[in-house]
Amino acid sequence: MKDLFFELQEKINSKTKPLGALGQLEETALQVGSIQGSTRPEVKLPHLVVFAGDHGIAETGLVNPYPQAVTAQMVHNFIRGGAAINVFCRQHQITLKIADAGVKADLSELHGSPEFIHAKIAPGTRNYLEEPAMSFEETERAIAVGRVIVNNIAATGCNTIAFGEMGIGNSSAASLLMAAFLNLPLEKCVGRGTGADDIQLTRKLQTLQAVSDKHLSVISLRSPLKTLQYLGGYEIAMMVGAYLSAAEHKMTIVVDGFIASAALLVAQSLRPEVLDNCIFGHCSGELGHHHLLHHFGARPLLNLGMRLGEGTGAALAIPLVQSAVLFLNEMAEMDSLKIPG
Amino acid sequence: MKDLFFELQEKINSKTKPLGALGQLEETALQVGSIQGSTRPEVKLPHLVVFAGDHGIAETGLVNPYPQAVTAQMVHNFIRGGAAINVFCRQHQITLKIADAGVKADLSELHGSPEFIHAKIAPGTRNYLEEPAMSFEETERAIAVGRVIVNNIAATGCNTIAFGEMGIGNSSAASLLMAAFLNLPLEKCVGRGTGADDIQLTRKLQTLQAVSDKHLSVISLRSPLKTLQYLGGYEIAMMVGAYLSAAEHKMTIVVDGFIASAALLVAQSLRPEVLDNCIFGHCSGELGHHHLLHHFGARPLLNLGMRLGEGTGAALAIPLVQSAVLFLNEMAEMDSLKIPG
Repeated sequence: MKDLFFELQEKINSKTKPLGALGQLEETALQVGSIQGSTRPEVKLPHLVVFAGDHGIAETGLVNPYPQAVTAQMVHNFIRGGAAINVFCRQHQITLKIADAGVKADLSELHGSPEFIHAKIAPGTRNYLEEPAMSFEETERAIAVGRVIVNNIAATGCNTIAFGEMGIGNSSAASLLMAAFLNLPLEKCVGRGTGADDIQLTRKLQTLQAVSDKHLSVISLRSPLKTLQYLGGYEIAMMVGAYLSAAEHKMTIVVDGFIASAALLVAQSLRPEVLDNCIFGHCSGELGHHHLLHHFGARPLLNLGMRLGEGTGAALAIPLVQSAVLFLNEMAEMDSLKIPG
Repeated sequence: MKDLFFELQEKINSKTKPLGALGQLEETALQVGSIQGSTRPEVKLPHLVVFAGDHGIAETGLVNPYPQAVTAQMVHNFIRGGAAINVFCRQHQITLKIADAGVKADLSELHGSPEFIHAKIAPGTRNYLEEPAMSFEETERAIAVGRVIVNNIAATGCNTIAFGEMGIGNSSAASLLMAAFLNLPLEKCVGRGTGADDIQLTRKLQTLQAVSDKHLSVISLRSPLKTLQYLGGYEIAMMVGAYLSAAEHKMTIVVDGFIASAALLVAQSLRPEVLDNCIFGHCSGELGHHHLLHHFGARPLLNLGMRLGEGTGAALAIPLVQSAVLFLNEMAEMDSLKIPG
């Protein structure tokens, strides 16, 4: 039996093009073929799940230019179809699901909507300036629920998935997780999030330094779950479970921006092999994301200076993953060119 | 009456997202809106025309690792639907046309095909090591025919177009044009084309230096048409006419890679305002393309290390242009978020 990787490379090289001329699309075709264990991989029923959750710190207004209520407002917007992620998922026929992981609002009127997943662990995390963001039990439950959500999607036949997020204050949680997991100073991990100005950014950095100092003893334990519990959020923990399940189901995972990458750090620390299934969709404009990408050894497909979250970077990259699979399956081979003479 | 640019920026800023969070897509939306003179621009019936032509120099084998016959073989492949550009155009519902600008082969059996445009000026250019590649009359005729091709496409209602090329040896012509128009040493303009190795690359550079030296007096005249005549090719000249017509029809032009950008240099020197209509689809892996992009002040949408030509980089970028237009038209506005209380 020939080695699959070798067979895939041979098939790519046989196509009617110079060797290597499709650049990163060729690497992407190799990776998707390897994930699916096939020289004829497919992108089937792509899905994107947006995990939404609120953060205790956001009530203080110390880290976020937008008020906390925007999280719930945006969930309504997702369900009405008016957000950027709705537009891009419609454009590319990606099935969109919105999971309430921990929004601090009564969203019961949305429970009948087919896009909505009621998965609320609690109405917002606690303020990690004072206490751990979540209980350990909540953290484990959020991961478990994230797994169930992806298990259910896998059962539909989907083999390609991306995860987005919505949560006022969650770039702070992502920065704290990044600093803890990569042992970096916070200055390298804290960016403007959704549009902080210079004064807000300074206050955000000071606030997060205080959070980090307070929980230093736990963080230094280097227990991934404890670190997630103290500094993370419900939507981030749920995304961790989603990554783990997606990899177990041999899905191709298209990774979005800063917060999605911070969640992936946690998933990687639990199961390093998750990375084999990850294609990095884009480099976010958020400071720190390129450090995260460097850590993962990733070369993202897109670099458009986007910093919106919601999974928008991943949604725009999915057609490129499809292009990689399509050229592998549909292009003619060099042998077919020759005119018999 | 409000200024259109101001109105477009206001509309972009009113969307349910932080200011600037869609990065380059926002700039793209501004540009397409400006081109169409509308705050509700659309991408209508996108087309891609591949111009094919042969080059006299390629008969010598001094600049090209692939034999000249491959140009005609690839035209057959395009019409059969087996090339990379076919795959990507099918994926994104882009109408593909293949124009025989100057292929050195009898392609009359393809004349009935709806994708094929019979526009042959002559069966291949002359060897510019010995004489000008084209006559002046041929150069002007190729430009005129390129205009007619795009005029006909504009008549279908298409408002978004891209141009690709196929021609063994045409990266040499593009390098010579680039060096002449930008007054750069050839070393900065000559790359591996379709996969030259180190020895082939050295020979290519030496050969093109001899061409450049021979025609120095004409090149130094700095007549764009004369330079095109001496150093260009039929597919490149036809593409020049295509750019000019597309801009006159207020089309959005998605620019492909190295050779398409060299043709744009010529078009720009004839009508600088053509650039207002150009969105740069990708940065090619071909040495020299990033210099060209720098000259145009361009930030390309994709940078995937592709170097295939055919318009493949532009085809993959067209969905991003569509995303820009779609977010502008379909996203909800901030005002709609507020919950009445």
